Formats: sequence, C-alpha cells, structure tokens
Amino acid sequence: MYRYALTIEYDGSPFHGWQVQNHLNTVQGVIFAAVKKFDLNCENLVGAGRTDAGVHATGQVAHVDLATERNCETVEKALNFYLNKYPISILSAKSVSKDFHARFSAIRRHYTYKIFYRKTALTFDRGQYWRIKRGLDIDSMRLAAGYLIGKHDFTTFRSSLCQAVSPIKTIDKICINSEEIRDGIVYKLDFTARSFLHNQIRSIVGSLEQVGRGRWRPQKIKEILLSKKRELCATLAPPCGLYLASVEY
Amino acid sequence: MYRYALTIEYDGSPFHGWQVQNHLNTVQGVIFAAVKKFDLNCENLVGAGRTDAGVHATGQVAHVDLATERNCETVEKALNFYLNKYPISILSAKSVSKDFHARFSAIRRHYTYKIFYRKTALTFDRGQYWRIKRGLDIDSMRLAAGYLIGKHDFTTFRSSLCQAVSPIKTIDKICINSEEIRDGIVYKLDFTARSFLHNQIRSIVGSLEQVGRGRWRPQKIKEILLSKKRELCATLAPPCGLYLASVEY
Repeated sequence: MYRYALTIEYDGSPFHGWQVQNHLNTVQGVIFAAVKKFDLNCENLVGAGRTDAGVHATGQVAHVDLATERNCETVEKALNFYLNKYPISILSAKSVSKDFHARFSAIRRHYTYKIFYRKTALTFDRGQYWRIKRGLDIDSMRLAAGYLIGKHDFTTFRSSLCQAVSPIKTIDKICINSEEIRDGIVYKLDFTARSFLHNQIRSIVGSLEQVGRGRWRPQKIKEILLSKKRELCATLAPPCGLYLASVEY
Repeated sequence: MYRYALTIEYDGSPFHGWQVQNHLNTVQGVIFAAVKKFDLNCENLVGAGRTDAGVHATGQVAHVDLATERNCETVEKALNFYLNKYPISILSAKSVSKDFHARFSAIRRHYTYKIFYRKTALTFDRGQYWRIKRGLDIDSMRLAAGYLIGKHDFTTFRSSLCQAVSPIKTIDKICINSEEIRDGIVYKLDFTARSFLHNQIRSIVGSLEQVGRGRWRPQKIKEILLSKKRELCATLAPPCGLYLASVEY
C-alpha cells in the first residue's frame, strides 16, 4: 500500500461530522467514497481531528492508503473531481511513509472559534459564525483565558461522552482578537494544543462568552476549572463557529 | 405616507436580481412582501442599485413609504422578523423626508468585485467570489484601470440591454488590492462613481482580468475604451463576485 497525506478544507454545515456513520453523510464517508472511485482497494482514511456535526476545517489532515502508487497531483485532482458536488476541497495530497499517522503523529493542533456580534442575522455567512447579540469585553476574556493555559485537569470543559483516557491536557495558547466588519464585530479565538478533549474548545468558548458579556467574573473560570465539575461549565458554544485550522507534525 | 430609508445586506445567490419580476423570487419582491405584512398600504420600494441575478449587497439602500408612522427600530425588527428565512438583513431603518429618493438622491455608489485565485474549488464561500485558476499581475491591472478613471464614453463596457440615455459616465476611483488567504489570493477591486451603466463593472473586471493574466497589454484597455465597440470587451465577469458596498447621499 502507498500512503498519502491529504490537507482538507470543508464547510461542515451539511455533514454529520467527520466520522463515518451508517446512512448519514459524513466528511470521512464522502471522501473515502471518492478515493474508492479511482482506487477500489484503498484502506484506512484517518483524520487528525474528528470534528463534530457542523464544525468546519480549513486545514484538516488525513492519511489514506492506496493499492496503486500514483502521482500526488493526480490524487489531488481526482479527489477534487469526485468531491465537486460537496463543499470539500483537497488542498494538497502528499506521498508519505508508512509510519506517518495523521492522528498519532500530530504534535500540535490549531483551532479557531469565530463569533460575530451584530444586531441582525447573518447573510453570506450563516453557519460560519456563532452570532451573538451583545458585544464582548475581550480584556476580561483574555484574563480568564490565561487561567486555562498550561497543564490542567479539564474535567469541567469535557463532554460527558469524551472517550479520552485522561482529562489532563496542556493548552499552549489561547489568543483572542476582534475586528469591526459589516455592521458588527468579529471575535476570533485561536487555540493551540497537542490535542483536545471532546467538546473542550466549545465548552471553553461558551464559558469565556459568559465572562465577555459580564455575567461571570474572569476569576470564575479558574474556580470552575479547579472544581472539576462538568455541571459548572456554561452552555456549549454552537459547532458552526469552530474550525480545525491546521495540524503540525 | 411616511418614508423610511433602509440599509440592506443580502446574499444574491438565491434571487433573480433586485428588481420585481412575476413568479420569480427577487430581493425587492421579497422585501416588499415583508413590508406589506405589517403595513398593508405601503408603497414604492425603490433601491439605489438594481443588482443583477447573483449580485450581492453589503450596503444597498432603498426607500419605502408606509401608511402608518412607526418607530424606526420597530420597522427594522419587523422586517428582519419577516425576512428571516431569506439571506437578507435590514441593517438599519431611518425616517427620511419625502424628498429623499434612494436612487435619484444618491451622489456616489461604491461597488466591490472579489476574485479568489486558487487551484481548488471554494467551500464556505462558493458563489461569493469569481474563482480563477491563475494568479493576476495587479501592477498591470492598476495601470490599465488608470485609463478608465474620469469622464468617458463607456460604450465598450456597457450591456447591449443598458437603458441609460447616455453612455458617458465618470469613474472616480478603481482601487485594486490583493491578500493571501486560505491557500490562495483574494483580489479586491473597489469602484466608485455617481452611477454606473448596466454591466459596466462586470465588463471592466472581465477586461482587467485579461490584463492581469498577461493576455492583454494594459494599453489595450485604453484602445478598446476609445474604440467604443462593445464587441471588443472581454467576457463579462460572473455576477457572484460583485457587491454593492455602500451608497452616499
């Protein structure tokens, strides 16, 4: 078998997440079907991040094993041809060695969460932001985010369905910025870590939003982190604002 | 009657243009139907620009006459409520005097044309750019655009269906910029004039793209302008890249 690494961009809106599921359109399912169209005996399409339903990617990485060796550009073009009816683009295909694993070889993952504050509904970009109706105080949010940097037990910010063995993770970076656009303000929250727990980013964003709108003091983030009680976390931020931005190996 | 000026954002993709047409969904038709839902005797929904099918707006302006005087915020909220299923947002509603006319009082219109150069198809933003497969030389395009600034007979860059009395228009500004994003380059062309001929911007962009990709010398733009021959214009740029950005009064 010949292994290829794919860099993938997709709009997650019409999909039931990354992971293959019976009778449902998923990103992994649709891409694997496209690979099969030109390499019937292909195997193992594995993604770096298993994005949830509605979550997007601008730089997901996946590997796949082909039965026949092919030129990288041919793989890229064939896949884009067969995927044309879906909002999925294979940005690149590269030949990699057998010991490259899209999930386990990753040393750092970058996610971006986008929030759009404006009074009225979005038009061009529905489903691409969490649209909120109040502005946020990003200084408080930055202060609150500071408590989450480093190695912690993230039980509070972890889905009850999370399958990870340990709730301990290390967050390297949370950067929060804002920009005025089209009658509103866009807030971008950039997250970097080796790996994340299930729903960790959406849990953190939901809680930071409570701080940003002034409902919670920044210190409350520290308190709920230390409490290790899932029920103290704010409501999960919606999936449509989340993007798997890139993966480092 | 009480006149209100509306500032409107819309994704033009699902509409047959701005102008009301029988049995077809148009932006004007859909907004007028929404106004009627709370003011049955309203009259005259007039827009500053009659955008073609697939053309977008981030700052269209229209006026409408209501039979009942209402609070501006109420007008705005009611309209957004009734328009919710469409990708149209009323960014603001303002009470204006009877001599304000969205189309005839406008002193300057700003349009933006967006081009996305990248190898692979777009995902989140299909229908929001003209996607091209070759990069453009913006220095040549800027040089070429310079020949179009000022007062000229724009017969070459005018639809054969254009109903304007005269082909003479004055373009105040064409600004061309580029930015690297998501595995490609976005080119933005900003146009300013008191008013434009039908298809004038898409005709100009189609021709400037020929210059940018090196098929035409910049001077050819001057030659075809002076020729006043419609058949010398390049193929029209597609509607999906065009945005009515704002209107000055």
